[in-house]
Amino acid sequence: MSKQQSLNIYKHRQDRLIEEINARELDAFVLNPGPSLTYLTGMRYHIMERPIIVIITPELPLTLVIPELESAKTLDIPYPIQIFMYTDDPSTWSKAFSQAASASGIQGDCRIGVEPNHLRVLELNYIENAAPQAIFISAESTLSALRAIKGPKEIESIRKATEIAQKALELTLPMIKIGMTEKQIAAELTLQLLRNGSESELPFSPIVSAGPNSANPHASPTERLLQDGDLLVIDWGARYQGYVSDITRTFAVGEVDPKYKRIVDVVAEANAVARQVVRPGIPASEIDKATRNIIQQAGYGEFFTHRTGHGLGMEGHEEPYIHSANDSIIIPGMTFTIEPGIYLPARNGSRIEDDILITKDGSVSLTDLPRNLRLVG
Amino acid sequence: MSKQQSLNIYKHRQDRLIEEINARELDAFVLNPGPSLTYLTGMRYHIMERPIIVIITPELPLTLVIPELESAKTLDIPYPIQIFMYTDDPSTWSKAFSQAASASGIQGDCRIGVEPNHLRVLELNYIENAAPQAIFISAESTLSALRAIKGPKEIESIRKATEIAQKALELTLPMIKIGMTEKQIAAELTLQLLRNGSESELPFSPIVSAGPNSANPHASPTERLLQDGDLLVIDWGARYQGYVSDITRTFAVGEVDPKYKRIVDVVAEANAVARQVVRPGIPASEIDKATRNIIQQAGYGEFFTHRTGHGLGMEGHEEPYIHSANDSIIIPGMTFTIEPGIYLPARNGSRIEDDILITKDGSVSLTDLPRNLRLVG
Repeated sequence: MSKQQSLNIYKHRQDRLIEEINARELDAFVLNPGPSLTYLTGMRYHIMERPIIVIITPELPLTLVIPELESAKTLDIPYPIQIFMYTDDPSTWSKAFSQAASASGIQGDCRIGVEPNHLRVLELNYIENAAPQAIFISAESTLSALRAIKGPKEIESIRKATEIAQKALELTLPMIKIGMTEKQIAAELTLQLLRNGSESELPFSPIVSAGPNSANPHASPTERLLQDGDLLVIDWGARYQGYVSDITRTFAVGEVDPKYKRIVDVVAEANAVARQVVRPGIPASEIDKATRNIIQQAGYGEFFTHRTGHGLGMEGHEEPYIHSANDSIIIPGMTFTIEPGIYLPARNGSRIEDDILITKDGSVSLTDLPRNLRLVG
Repeated sequence: MSKQQSLNIYKHRQDRLIEEINARELDAFVLNPGPSLTYLTGMRYHIMERPIIVIITPELPLTLVIPELESAKTLDIPYPIQIFMYTDDPSTWSKAFSQAASASGIQGDCRIGVEPNHLRVLELNYIENAAPQAIFISAESTLSALRAIKGPKEIESIRKATEIAQKALELTLPMIKIGMTEKQIAAELTLQLLRNGSESELPFSPIVSAGPNSANPHASPTERLLQDGDLLVIDWGARYQGYVSDITRTFAVGEVDPKYKRIVDVVAEANAVARQVVRPGIPASEIDKATRNIIQQAGYGEFFTHRTGHGLGMEGHEEPYIHSANDSIIIPGMTFTIEPGIYLPARNGSRIEDDILITKDGSVSLTDLPRNLRLVG
């Protein structure tokens, strides 16, 4: 992307946020490092013990508070910006925040939007001290709604992240043998993700869980050995140009009892029904209901213990969340997972997860690995 | 570790925290997922859009608020605990927080300690609503002071993390050639870290920066090709049983101009002097002064733009921070980095970073890779 192109993208996104700031009668928005800041400005900082914020107001240039040692990263910011730096001595930090609050005009009575899921009490305290008359408004949805509708370049990055992840899994499957540990399989899959083009900051460490462990939807890989008769759940993703994929498939290790094969069949059907239902104009809850219905009718309703899916973008979990109480309308450009599961405690679990892109008149699954119960080991 | 051993460790740590709660006249401590929670309880959850907290009080069992889908992880908690769960429907979340606040006795007037560097506005808002009469006290140092003094098992994990990192680098160095990109070198090093036993959640993605990029202490690897005459800074670490290492070395690519060799020599001397000075009983600032003095005397003071080091443990950056304004006393069991650097903007930079363990009567560097300017490429 040329400097001019990226300037245009960030300018457009900042203008959209400023429309929202005005519509919500806010005076400013304050962000700490994270996906929303990167989305709006291109800036990438890690969350550390040194507080970093950007103040966005309708009239003034962006205002940045950063530690001095990050100053090199500000050199190629392609738009006007006011920068206030502090040193490694924490007693200098408050002053930088006060100067920034003054320069951005937030020191009087004002309403400041923040993202509660991202802003820490650390940054909040510094801003509260620098702008003691300000009121802080939880405005998570302001940015998450903007970020939920992906542009063509974002979609291309997510598509590439799904391709990398699918290729990495196909290269890992032949290595899986009875007697390997979940951790060993996870390490091989991680290697393949990196070799095949994922950024080193994976969206999450792969989940590899077999037998009783597969009945925990958020399991971490253990030293347990893969056994004949296990269901094996692998949940993994790649990151490409900052955007992520997130896929799950369930495999059979050797000879699996028909009652466990059955839960995989039910989950596959629930996944397929959701993919048929999903299209622009329906509420997110309708997708959840369609898939949950299949699982309930099969008698496993109580064992589908989580929502049907979540948005995908620069974060592995973001808007839209696909659950029964979310009546937000599905819109073209949204990208999210569909991932029904059945978890039989202490026995076996199954989950099948695809990454869906909403198109103008329907949807497409960006992931297309076989969903039937493939044999490994 | 047996269940009894881990019970003893967590019980001891919780007792120490409760002493601090009493000493600071707090009524409770509230933590969200992260290293302090893992340190105190062994619980590991990712920070996500679903708020998770633990309330610790002197008299009552630990009180946990979690999403239902994490319930499997609570089965093997080896001590009494009260658990309040909510579903994926966010309208159920407040109720779980209220019930937890009631069960832990924090609904009246009380003083609650929190960690501002870790707690998000998300969790703060839920607790504030559940305990509207509570006052929240920034008590970051309560836990960071406990965590700064490592026990034998923690030290063993950090030592192992340094060994894995050193081995991974030695296996990567022979692959480095002129014409490779920084990103390619970083990917190879990441592979070697995982192959040699690092947990897949690295403490940070390796920094590989050459030539002008090496003058940015927090650079991310780019597509720039390695060139004859570059200084090459590699800053990397491994994670073992939750504990991290963090090392930096500077290399010469082909024939390097003597004026850049000179900055590496100065940095190596500053590193050596700091390692000589460091011992129990001195203030952290004295280490910073000793190393900064060498760089200033050599005429590069303004180009050493960051503090001398930071603590290492479950976090890559934690207490003690080694900077000129920190007069906290160095104590046996502390582990931290010593990492002087010189950064000549747009030209070249150098940093040499070791991981130091404070012993009863001195210190030892857990890292021992050669610090002289080795040739690569």
